[in-house]
Amino acid sequence: MEKKTIAIVGLGLIGGSLALALKGFEDFEVVGVARRQATVDYALEHGVGDRATLDVTAALREADVTFLCINPEDIVDFLAQHREDFKPGSLVTDVCGIKGAIMEASKVLPPEVDFIGSHPMAGTEFSGIEHALTDMFQGAHYIITPRGDSRQENIALLERLAAYLGCRDVVNTTPERHDAIIAYTSQMMHVIAVSVCDDPNLFTCKGYEGSSFRGCTRVAALDVPLWTQLFALNAPALTGCLDELIVHLQSYREIIASGDMEKLSAKLAVSADRKRQMDLPGPDLLH
Amino acid sequence: MEKKTIAIVGLGLIGGSLALALKGFEDFEVVGVARRQATVDYALEHGVGDRATLDVTAALREADVTFLCINPEDIVDFLAQHREDFKPGSLVTDVCGIKGAIMEASKVLPPEVDFIGSHPMAGTEFSGIEHALTDMFQGAHYIITPRGDSRQENIALLERLAAYLGCRDVVNTTPERHDAIIAYTSQMMHVIAVSVCDDPNLFTCKGYEGSSFRGCTRVAALDVPLWTQLFALNAPALTGCLDELIVHLQSYREIIASGDMEKLSAKLAVSADRKRQMDLPGPDLLH
Repeated sequence: MEKKTIAIVGLGLIGGSLALALKGFEDFEVVGVARRQATVDYALEHGVGDRATLDVTAALREADVTFLCINPEDIVDFLAQHREDFKPGSLVTDVCGIKGAIMEASKVLPPEVDFIGSHPMAGTEFSGIEHALTDMFQGAHYIITPRGDSRQENIALLERLAAYLGCRDVVNTTPERHDAIIAYTSQMMHVIAVSVCDDPNLFTCKGYEGSSFRGCTRVAALDVPLWTQLFALNAPALTGCLDELIVHLQSYREIIASGDMEKLSAKLAVSADRKRQMDLPGPDLLH
Repeated sequence: MEKKTIAIVGLGLIGGSLALALKGFEDFEVVGVARRQATVDYALEHGVGDRATLDVTAALREADVTFLCINPEDIVDFLAQHREDFKPGSLVTDVCGIKGAIMEASKVLPPEVDFIGSHPMAGTEFSGIEHALTDMFQGAHYIITPRGDSRQENIALLERLAAYLGCRDVVNTTPERHDAIIAYTSQMMHVIAVSVCDDPNLFTCKGYEGSSFRGCTRVAALDVPLWTQLFALNAPALTGCLDELIVHLQSYREIIASGDMEKLSAKLAVSADRKRQMDLPGPDLLH
């Protein structure tokens, strides 16, 4: 029996990590697809995937599963350009942080190709295959947005893939709900981080920063084209979240300025209690 | 020769961690001082310090170094109440996140007691001796605010203590500068965290949070009395930082709403570059 293959298009931080972490998954061979020979060479040298190639079309034609690990706008273009190249009956997915625009773009595919959106909630502030990590997805939520006619066996396959990656769970939702919530849990965190770093005091604070500062600003060193696209493709939801945040910040600002410690204490108790109710254990909670 | 002693007043998260981490420092014995017998019992049972006692006055009288690891307002009261109890010639310090009010309160001490403010930039979102960690201070900045007449040998002693704790460096500054910068690097991070958690969407986002969300909101589960006091004692600096943050958030909000991707990309590039210039490596940077 011939080996099945997983094609990973785009060997950057996430694609590279997938290619590392999916090696050995069931009876699949992992084929990395890159645009630059240097990336292919790096992948071959460091065992990122089982094979690596520049030949996108050949890779798509043999792939039983294709992961598109490129920027959102590139995914839209890629789907249109390669619509006829995907293997009939195959599963195509992506890994990007926006789902509405991607699911819309996937409508260009022929009906015998099943597209299910994916968003593994993992990453670091670095880019590129050199920063790929085998354990990148350990403990992460893996969100999927199937179409109404997505095949159950493909959803089950994604669930096994996510489990193999070490993900905590698979969350099945709609593109609309995904984008509304991700504006808050992910995109807004990045806007906060860059806004904090825009403070003129940034460079004078060296020697005075602790883990709360590093935790909040870590993601400010972001991949600019990627996040420009993610923000722009979700602008209404994101600006709504920011408006809400500014209201809550202003509210704290006023109560701190008022000097009313009793009110401040009561307000902090409510917020801290909300956070404790969230109870989000994770490997990064202790630092 | 008699052993010298370090008294640690208050065996909470930080005091407990100090009592754990300072064991074996030079020829000092570490004596924990608590208000409740249960804390003393816990300390003795878990080796938090070499000894533990309820008798504050006796501990202060024999201590060559005293760490006050209690809330800011309690430090102010404690210094006034115990001004005559500290051993003449001894070094007294604290660990709290505000220095102006503490240095002012230390003026109550007799001239033969040397008070130097300390702020080890470490902690977790937990409270209490059960969460104390031996490696709490690994890689942290240790900030000191000596008085004009502080003895050089005591500054040197704090530097050795900080090195023994595993701190990255000792930053010597004024109370005014400390409080101005800490408003930005620490207090504002806590206001951001609680403000994010005040969003009505908090509880619907379970399953959609990644490391950026956890990194930003981790400290929202804060010690309410402690942070009420820290915010109140530094209100002008903190409100100034919040005003500045809101300006930068608004600026991102407007540019995202405008749909001008070129401008958004240029702005993100500036912020991301600022963050990269900060270059703050730390053990928590990879998650």
